[in-house]
Amino acid sequence: MAEPVIHHRTPQYRKIFEQATGRLKRVFMTQGPVYTITGSGTSAMEASLVNFHSAGDEVLVLEAGKFGERFTHLAKAYGLKVTVLKAPYGDVVEPEEVKAALKKNPLIRAVCSQLCETSTAALHDVKEIAKVVQQSSALLIVDAISGLGADRLETDAWGVDLVVTASQKALMLPPGLAFISVSEKAQARMKAARLPKFYLNLALYEKGMPDWDTPFTSALTLVIGLNKALEMIEAEGLESVFKRCQLLGEFTRAKLKSLGLELFSKAPSATVSAASVPAGINGEEIVKIMRDQKGVSIAGGQGEMKGKIIRIAHMGAITKKDLEEGLVLLEETLNEMKVKGAK
Amino acid sequence: MAEPVIHHRTPQYRKIFEQATGRLKRVFMTQGPVYTITGSGTSAMEASLVNFHSAGDEVLVLEAGKFGERFTHLAKAYGLKVTVLKAPYGDVVEPEEVKAALKKNPLIRAVCSQLCETSTAALHDVKEIAKVVQQSSALLIVDAISGLGADRLETDAWGVDLVVTASQKALMLPPGLAFISVSEKAQARMKAARLPKFYLNLALYEKGMPDWDTPFTSALTLVIGLNKALEMIEAEGLESVFKRCQLLGEFTRAKLKSLGLELFSKAPSATVSAASVPAGINGEEIVKIMRDQKGVSIAGGQGEMKGKIIRIAHMGAITKKDLEEGLVLLEETLNEMKVKGAK
Repeated sequence: MAEPVIHHRTPQYRKIFEQATGRLKRVFMTQGPVYTITGSGTSAMEASLVNFHSAGDEVLVLEAGKFGERFTHLAKAYGLKVTVLKAPYGDVVEPEEVKAALKKNPLIRAVCSQLCETSTAALHDVKEIAKVVQQSSALLIVDAISGLGADRLETDAWGVDLVVTASQKALMLPPGLAFISVSEKAQARMKAARLPKFYLNLALYEKGMPDWDTPFTSALTLVIGLNKALEMIEAEGLESVFKRCQLLGEFTRAKLKSLGLELFSKAPSATVSAASVPAGINGEEIVKIMRDQKGVSIAGGQGEMKGKIIRIAHMGAITKKDLEEGLVLLEETLNEMKVKGAK
Repeated sequence: MAEPVIHHRTPQYRKIFEQATGRLKRVFMTQGPVYTITGSGTSAMEASLVNFHSAGDEVLVLEAGKFGERFTHLAKAYGLKVTVLKAPYGDVVEPEEVKAALKKNPLIRAVCSQLCETSTAALHDVKEIAKVVQQSSALLIVDAISGLGADRLETDAWGVDLVVTASQKALMLPPGLAFISVSEKAQARMKAARLPKFYLNLALYEKGMPDWDTPFTSALTLVIGLNKALEMIEAEGLESVFKRCQLLGEFTRAKLKSLGLELFSKAPSATVSAASVPAGINGEEIVKIMRDQKGVSIAGGQGEMKGKIIRIAHMGAITKKDLEEGLVLLEETLNEMKVKGAK
């Protein structure tokens, strides 16, 4: 990505974009189109709503954390009618609940879920949810921003209509790109969707595709990096990547338990794991000491979980060595804080 | 930008973002807020409309090329009523025409203009247009995507309400960031604006500002690069940058004329210059030969100007040496094409 910047409307760049998109489809496990948007992950979440709905449409949101809530905020901002299925933080919404909600309200046009709810490290059972949604006329929208390329997600085989992800998690890039795949069922809806949009109008992205052109200037240094990162994933093999992330997750959670911490998520993910912070200790303080004194990046809680949990990622470029060293320093930090607290 | 990626919710990153925003304000020549959006320039153009309008609002668009037309497409996509003031390609809309249009229709809520219309290399007289718009209740929105930091634009002093730019032109960065400044007059409008938005909702960006936080994950490697690029502009001095771009523009146009080419833009810009392609020669072919055989990047025409003009940028990191060498190779290319054509 540090090489001289080429122009985005050149054959040279188009070739890279074509290659990256082909590789992206294999990680999405889809034969359908995958569009690249210059933006944060939220821009693709917004695209998953505005391109397939009209004002007043009903959507069902599975809310199990901060990013579930984001779907609700997004849908409401565009005048959609939202029914929320709420799970306590750390838990997930069960496929049976989705089935009951769809039965109760046949007007529901889309079901919005996270794969891994990044804010709580809880993994939705997207495969079973998809089975349920496929029996209705609703679209299944899955935010896999942190999970894609770590937790298994078989877009076509499971029948997920819209999968959203971003560059900065399991795809190992800096932030700045968002991606969305579109099923045939979803494509059939686009023309009738009346919500206003321009920058996120996927029809404009679709139009450029035959020539590997984009409607707006691409963040091309990131696309060049994307192609490279996807090449690395391809070399390792997607199945091996899933397995690696799963094993690292198991290792991380075993280690957290051995430190006497209680796991926070009831549905463990291969992307990230979370633990409750021991009573009397501020989780934000752990994150700060780890970062400033130990040089290790872990995450705290978001929203109402602030200070109450810590989160450790084990997807993307994170290695077992990173985790081993980080967890030793976490143990050290917790011990130091206990000693300090006891004074 | 090639250094290890830091996390975007750390004090380290917040400091860089604060510094970059301060520097950005000086290049925008404003004391008001300037927001950074992860997106192409068009995302900020969209933000300039959706945050300040409700469906049915009337806007006046100055259309002098492809990017003027983009404002029209954007406004129509959101259900705004658009009045167009059209100038022939290569020309600009005059302040007097804006005055007459505002007088004729006092319901106009915003006037949309380019600073430099990138597609034709024509420079609008934003200073005089601002004088006219300030006498009305309308906001003045200026797309300065290619022009900011090359053509003079005094946001506060001239009274421009919303200035939009992006990272990849005079700010010398790869694409991926868009920016928008907001005047007090525009801020007073935000709360009543009913157009739907979420990713581009500037109120969310405003909320994070006191802590230098962003509502969505920032393209942080680009922000780090931005801070560095703005430091370079600061070291040279903004006035010197304006002067340099102006002189390089004059040099470029003199050279184009000496090659027997007719200048295309009737209102020359310090950002980019354009020339008509001689009869019997395809402009796209010139661009292709220059790129593939001479290693020089120039631009062709866009939209209806395709094949008819060539454009040479002289802003940002482009040096006099780049231009001298490039123009010699352009002369060479034109001669080769004439010989070929004569066969």
